[in-house]
Amino acid sequence: MFLHKQTLQYKATPEKPDAVYARKLQELIGGQYGEITVAMQYSFQAWNAHIPGKYRDLLFSTAAEEFGHVEMLATMVAQLLEKAPQGITEDAVQDDPTVAAIVGGTDVQEAVVAGAGARPVDSNGNPWNAGYVTASGNLLADFTSNISAEMQGRTQVARLYHMTDDPGVRDLLSFLLARDTHHQNQWLAAARELQAEGVEEMPVPSNFPKSKEAQEFSYQAINFSDGEHMQEGSWASGPAPDGLGEFTYVATPPDGVPMPPPTRPDSRFYGTTDMPNIVEKTAGAVQDKLKKE
Amino acid sequence: MFLHKQTLQYKATPEKPDAVYARKLQELIGGQYGEITVAMQYSFQAWNAHIPGKYRDLLFSTAAEEFGHVEMLATMVAQLLEKAPQGITEDAVQDDPTVAAIVGGTDVQEAVVAGAGARPVDSNGNPWNAGYVTASGNLLADFTSNISAEMQGRTQVARLYHMTDDPGVRDLLSFLLARDTHHQNQWLAAARELQAEGVEEMPVPSNFPKSKEAQEFSYQAINFSDGEHMQEGSWASGPAPDGLGEFTYVATPPDGVPMPPPTRPDSRFYGTTDMPNIVEKTAGAVQDKLKKE
Amino acid sequence: MFLHKQTLQYKATPEKPDAVYARKLQELIGGQYGEITVAMQYSFQAWNAHIPGKYRDLLFSTAAEEFGHVEMLATMVAQLLEKAPQGITEDAVQDDPTVAAIVGGTDVQEAVVAGAGARPVDSNGNPWNAGYVTASGNLLADFTSNISAEMQGRTQVARLYHMTDDPGVRDLLSFLLARDTHHQNQWLAAARELQAEGVEEMPVPSNFPKSKEAQEFSYQAINFSDGEHMQEGSWASGPAPDGLGEFTYVATPPDGVPMPPPTRPDSRFYGTTDMPNIVEKTAGAVQDKLKKE
Amino acid sequence: MFLHKQTLQYKATPEKPDAVYARKLQELIGGQYGEITVAMQYSFQAWNAHIPGKYRDLLFSTAAEEFGHVEMLATMVAQLLEKAPQGITEDAVQDDPTVAAIVGGTDVQEAVVAGAGARPVDSNGNPWNAGYVTASGNLLADFTSNISAEMQGRTQVARLYHMTDDPGVRDLLSFLLARDTHHQNQWLAAARELQAEGVEEMPVPSNFPKSKEAQEFSYQAINFSDGEHMQEGSWASGPAPDGLGEFTYVATPPDGVPMPPPTRPDSRFYGTTDMPNIVEKTAGAVQDKLKKE
Amino acid sequence: MFLHKQTLQYKATPEKPDAVYARKLQELIGGQYGEITVAMQYSFQAWNAHIPGKYRDLLFSTAAEEFGHVEMLATMVAQLLEKAPQGITEDAVQDDPTVAAIVGGTDVQEAVVAGAGARPVDSNGNPWNAGYVTASGNLLADFTSNISAEMQGRTQVARLYHMTDDPGVRDLLSFLLARDTHHQNQWLAAARELQAEGVEEMPVPSNFPKSKEAQEFSYQAINFSDGEHMQEGSWASGPAPDGLGEFTYVATPPDGVPMPPPTRPDSRFYGTTDMPNIVEKTAGAVQDKLKKE
Amino acid sequence: MFLHKQTLQYKATPEKPDAVYARKLQELIGGQYGEITVAMQYSFQAWNAHIPGKYRDLLFSTAAEEFGHVEMLATMVAQLLEKAPQGITEDAVQDDPTVAAIVGGTDVQEAVVAGAGARPVDSNGNPWNAGYVTASGNLLADFTSNISAEMQGRTQVARLYHMTDDPGVRDLLSFLLARDTHHQNQWLAAARELQAEGVEEMPVPSNFPKSKEAQEFSYQAINFSDGEHMQEGSWASGPAPDGLGEFTYVATPPDGVPMPPPTRPDSRFYGTTDMPNIVEKTAGAVQDKLKKE
Repeated sequence: MFLHKQTLQYKATPEKPDAVYARKLQELIGGQYGEITVAMQYSFQAWNAHIPGKYRDLLFSTAAEEFGHVEMLATMVAQLLEKAPQGITEDAVQDDPTVAAIVGGTDVQEAVVAGAGARPVDSNGNPWNAGYVTASGNLLADFTSNISAEMQGRTQVARLYHMTDDPGVRDLLSFLLARDTHHQNQWLAAARELQAEGVEEMPVPSNFPKSKEAQEFSYQAINFSDGEHMQEGSWASGPAPDGLGEFTYVATPPDGVPMPPPTRPDSRFYGTTDMPNIVEKTAGAVQDKLKKE
Repeated sequence: MFLHKQTLQYKATPEKPDAVYARKLQELIGGQYGEITVAMQYSFQAWNAHIPGKYRDLLFSTAAEEFGHVEMLATMVAQLLEKAPQGITEDAVQDDPTVAAIVGGTDVQEAVVAGAGARPVDSNGNPWNAGYVTASGNLLADFTSNISAEMQGRTQVARLYHMTDDPGVRDLLSFLLARDTHHQNQWLAAARELQAEGVEEMPVPSNFPKSKEAQEFSYQAINFSDGEHMQEGSWASGPAPDGLGEFTYVATPPDGVPMPPPTRPDSRFYGTTDMPNIVEKTAGAVQDKLKKE
Repeated sequence: MFLHKQTLQYKATPEKPDAVYARKLQELIGGQYGEITVAMQYSFQAWNAHIPGKYRDLLFSTAAEEFGHVEMLATMVAQLLEKAPQGITEDAVQDDPTVAAIVGGTDVQEAVVAGAGARPVDSNGNPWNAGYVTASGNLLADFTSNISAEMQGRTQVARLYHMTDDPGVRDLLSFLLARDTHHQNQWLAAARELQAEGVEEMPVPSNFPKSKEAQEFSYQAINFSDGEHMQEGSWASGPAPDGLGEFTYVATPPDGVPMPPPTRPDSRFYGTTDMPNIVEKTAGAVQDKLKKE
Repeated sequence: MFLHKQTLQYKATPEKPDAVYARKLQELIGGQYGEITVAMQYSFQAWNAHIPGKYRDLLFSTAAEEFGHVEMLATMVAQLLEKAPQGITEDAVQDDPTVAAIVGGTDVQEAVVAGAGARPVDSNGNPWNAGYVTASGNLLADFTSNISAEMQGRTQVARLYHMTDDPGVRDLLSFLLARDTHHQNQWLAAARELQAEGVEEMPVPSNFPKSKEAQEFSYQAINFSDGEHMQEGSWASGPAPDGLGEFTYVATPPDGVPMPPPTRPDSRFYGTTDMPNIVEKTAGAVQDKLKKE
Repeated sequence: MFLHKQTLQYKATPEKPDAVYARKLQELIGGQYGEITVAMQYSFQAWNAHIPGKYRDLLFSTAAEEFGHVEMLATMVAQLLEKAPQGITEDAVQDDPTVAAIVGGTDVQEAVVAGAGARPVDSNGNPWNAGYVTASGNLLADFTSNISAEMQGRTQVARLYHMTDDPGVRDLLSFLLARDTHHQNQWLAAARELQAEGVEEMPVPSNFPKSKEAQEFSYQAINFSDGEHMQEGSWASGPAPDGLGEFTYVATPPDGVPMPPPTRPDSRFYGTTDMPNIVEKTAGAVQDKLKKE
Repeated sequence: MFLHKQTLQYKATPEKPDAVYARKLQELIGGQYGEITVAMQYSFQAWNAHIPGKYRDLLFSTAAEEFGHVEMLATMVAQLLEKAPQGITEDAVQDDPTVAAIVGGTDVQEAVVAGAGARPVDSNGNPWNAGYVTASGNLLADFTSNISAEMQGRTQVARLYHMTDDPGVRDLLSFLLARDTHHQNQWLAAARELQAEGVEEMPVPSNFPKSKEAQEFSYQAINFSDGEHMQEGSWASGPAPDGLGEFTYVATPPDGVPMPPPTRPDSRFYGTTDMPNIVEKTAGAVQDKLKKE
């Protein structure tokens, strides 16, 4: 159950309007690694969790926090748009290149569709979609996805920090950067704890029977490009991080096996086959065959 | 530049047709964590890499291998479909519940659109889309995303392994499981190497100035749910994995700050405002204002 | 700010597993009119609201309730899947038509991607996307959209009610039906109150200057089909619901105006024009023109 | 059957080119509430209608009109683009900030993909998709959706009206505003008529057996946020609009019921469970179990 | 302008219900090459056409016909669903494997969302989207796309013909096959006529200045795979179809040129660079640089 | 199997940065007719091919070449972005209209998401999706689709050629234009060869039994619009290109057949029916019927 409280976790008020920046902030709301993604991702991971206790409690908590981050950003966007030129004409302002340039960099839909408000889309106007969400029921896989999401998200916030000099916006971003720092650390700690407790280990899933894996290929660093430096990394020799094997380097891919012959499906799929004159040659047979239908 | 070779990295031939399973295998081709995703992801990471040498060589190599995995799976799917019932009627087989059940579980588009062939879609028929790809230019963020992708991918292969008993299919899956084992280890090794070399560290991005972050929130485990066990994890006390801070636990979210007042954009956005009788009250003014337009 | 509580608003436990029905319930989670849609829609309407007070409070409250409905349904789906056959083979069960039929009707991704869990998708596996959300800043338009969403949603719940006889599932649906009844009534009451208070009226937006509308067409029921009965409705004669005009019936569309001549854009767009021999005829001129570039 | 006539319902010729505005008009063609949406929505409602006569005739008629509106807008867009700068360079115009600003605000695909023409996309270039369409077979639900669509659409036209001062464009918009006025009224009249005739009533669907609904929750205004003003509305006390119940206000959500325990699916889904040492502990059993496969 | 007529171009009535087949027919309504695609494609090509006369008239006419084909198919789907089992339970029919199998093969949304009606989606439930539409303003390119669309469409109809033995359905398909035959021929005739009249020629666009093309590569059949037979085709030697060059065969791709060095964008993008200790090394400089912001 | 080589087929280095043009080039990478589309399309056609030999070899070869074209374009985009203003502020440059205009025309995600790199999206930021791919197993249909794709692609390159005067960019485009010239010719040659060899002919699929087609409609040019010139084309009279029929012109669509009556599905779908008082009238019966459930 979710309860809503009409306060914000942190101050979210810009010093001045900026519709171009409002469009950029949409990335943090509805982008691939925006706040909607992490809110929904942690929610579904919690609902699909198979263990009660600390891990699931952590998921529920962080999910709820992230919905509040969507709220702070949406609130910020609305204020950035409140008094900003977005194309509503008055006299001849469109002839002013400065105004024209600003209008060119705004999100038309924030104006025309939302009436100067935030939208659940990214900075290019792509609607957020659930294809961004990861929730597999395997917590080590999912926590690793969460570390990744927080890293990508914090990188984007850091980039956006340098795209404005509004103190109010920067203040909010400094808070989001801090929470992303915490969440990166949190998920990494959780992933380590899962392994320390032996709940799940590398490679994920760790309890798939080794005997059913083609183990001779499990630690081979095969080079499919012609870069000479691939072999210099720790992935090409020495012990693998999972502690179960030793990397070997294969400089060129083995020849492989011949492709199986092309398929010849039922002729009623009308694919092109290697019997050039099928119509003539098999006319009788085909007609017989098709008569039934 | 990419060169193609008409052999497969590993044998990909089923023992018998199985159109229902062919649909399931689509997940590994065109799903969120299918082979198209990793092939494209590693390619774009390589093209966006800012350092020559071992890391970029590794990306180019693995990208090329993954395109070959798409090929093996597409080849497998075509063979699973080759002689399988997919709805082409002959006599009255549709009345046979076994056949009807099989037809119900197949992907109609593999039959009607591809003519008994593989498609760049997932097991629900969603076309693959580039929203699945992550490539930020920050290698620690991206390698972490790659570890995650390989974990999710291997988990799906393991699940699919138990959904067939065809020895030919299982043989191919045992190979993919092994390569996923390698790739999980490989990206983890690479992520560690980046950190060991000081190229990039936690939190990502590591060279964002700490002074610009609201550091008092950077290590707070705030509980937004009512689970009692969240505080038991290593994310709620003790040193954070980045080595730069100490976790503290906050049992209930602080009250927060008041929401800013709602925005009142230009009346020509026709949003609903708190001036109930705007039409009557401001009729004159509005008309004056609008006369110009 | 959102807070999470680890209880459910209503009991959500099925009597027995049913993976086929689990797929159907996805429609109520991630479909066009599923709970994610209304939760997100009411949230964005609240964040884009321009008036403090009862309307915005109502939006915040209902948004939070709907996120809890997503949770109840996701919990239900996980339980329906918990012990249900989803394709994991054991012995030869796939030859059993009953089991094969069940497997054919399940969502492969609930098994392979989520590991027997719920997903933010609809019953055909389409990921939820924000293109379903409506939030314009105009409350009468938005509340009308909300009435519509609740009507569509309740209709779908009612249909799904008849597709199961599991008492546990039906119990949850009976609760959702009741809440949808309330929410239909609630938004209708709110839409009426907006009008009663004169905040917003028909036609929306109500304060757009009438003089700028081509008013001769504002109440014409023009028949673009050949149905004879269109004129029988209250939309073809008598006073219009907005109280500002009188409907008239136009039995056949007037002839209209000639289409403007086709455009001839710059030849460097390489569109096909009506100057058949452009290459020869204008070669010299084109070459001169292009020399500069 | 549809027949086409090479005239337009209304004049659609701009006074001067304006590629930036051409991009904005795309919202009315291919946006969520653009003309393609209503044309397709009314068509599918007509095809899914279960009653012959006035309601279906109305749907067919309005659908056909809306396809003609797509045509008028596409024609307008092509003319706005015909002689407008869209990035085709000549000399050094790109250095002129005015031209650069214009080019920045245009839709690149209108130029590069369509060759200076309209496209079935919205103002952010998102392709129109059928996820925008509502057609349930329940006419009261669908007509309410239609009222909503016309309200949203008219609001967008009104906003766009203020974003241009081209008399030709404004003339077309004044016509569309008028037709949207009519269609809002029309669908509202039709929705009322359905109810007056007892064909369908509130709550939709109205003939779902009341006894199967958890009626104690059907008129409860439960406050899930902390806004104090929610209780002031007509949705919190007094008779509900459906005439079947009386609203009551619940100031805080009841505690709810405990969540069911997390699910533990078959171990071959490789979800993380609460048996930390499953690999070691159950190795023997798992191996026995897996031997069969 | 479009006018609607309440008759169908051809009879569209099945002999008996078949919900599984209704789902399959969706491919012809809302699939990549379904009737919505061609109706919209020909419409946009007409609106973007730059020549009045026969070509544009042809586009308008065919577009209108195709909208009528959508209608016939939607009508057919509704009838196939009318009395078919779609999951509405009565007694214990779900235990009957035949019924279960049928339900497994149906489109849940045709039942739950449309109430036993057609939807603007394909056979996997993907909503139709405008990314399927091609309309470039270049008629030879577009007519070639149309030939392709009609070929793919007719192939799908032919496949579907063999997936039913219902005489009513087959009757409608036999009509669609005939119209597809006509339209394939029509667009091919139109493409030839464009070339015969010199309006547009191969290669498209034909009036791009040859001198600006790297002509030494314009007729080289370069083999990027290791297939030995590529050189046997008419594309590897002899005159090219455009009459302007002679094919030559290049057995192996030339070595190519070195890749440019990786980019090093502004450090505030936080990409990973080859300066491992940037934080320490440049701390002073970075701090100076960042002080301004 | 794919192998990668760290050289480019052709030089891909711009003379100077240009972030606005970098956005435009995205169309050639991730657009409907960009290089990802053709690379994936030719790959899937090869994997779905049913004949070994020259046609399949050609598909494999061209697919591999196209992946290399994606690489060249991605490399170009990264360099165009390397030193270009993309919104990272320094002092007050945003007040400079020239810079503001440039920033307005760039792709925000190339900066914020990719860190000044290329992305698998089009020029409006739409992620590439597999709905663009055509691969049917019928080679004449597919080669025709390939001709179309190369025509559209070359037209877009030609348009983009005129949108820059950077010699380095133009050099790369001149190479792509040449390869598109070759590929147009190649697929046309292949399509002709298929027909010359009798492998596949017009209409596609050519071996569908003529007797099952409603042949009286196979060569009728029926005019559904009111354009007078449609009848002037070679598609309205004379022999059809397939050599199997003679075109006839039908000036007005025949009346058609009456629509079947609307469907009346099971009342538990809660569609609106023509029994206005169903609730009252059938209350008893319905209750009886529903009692079982």
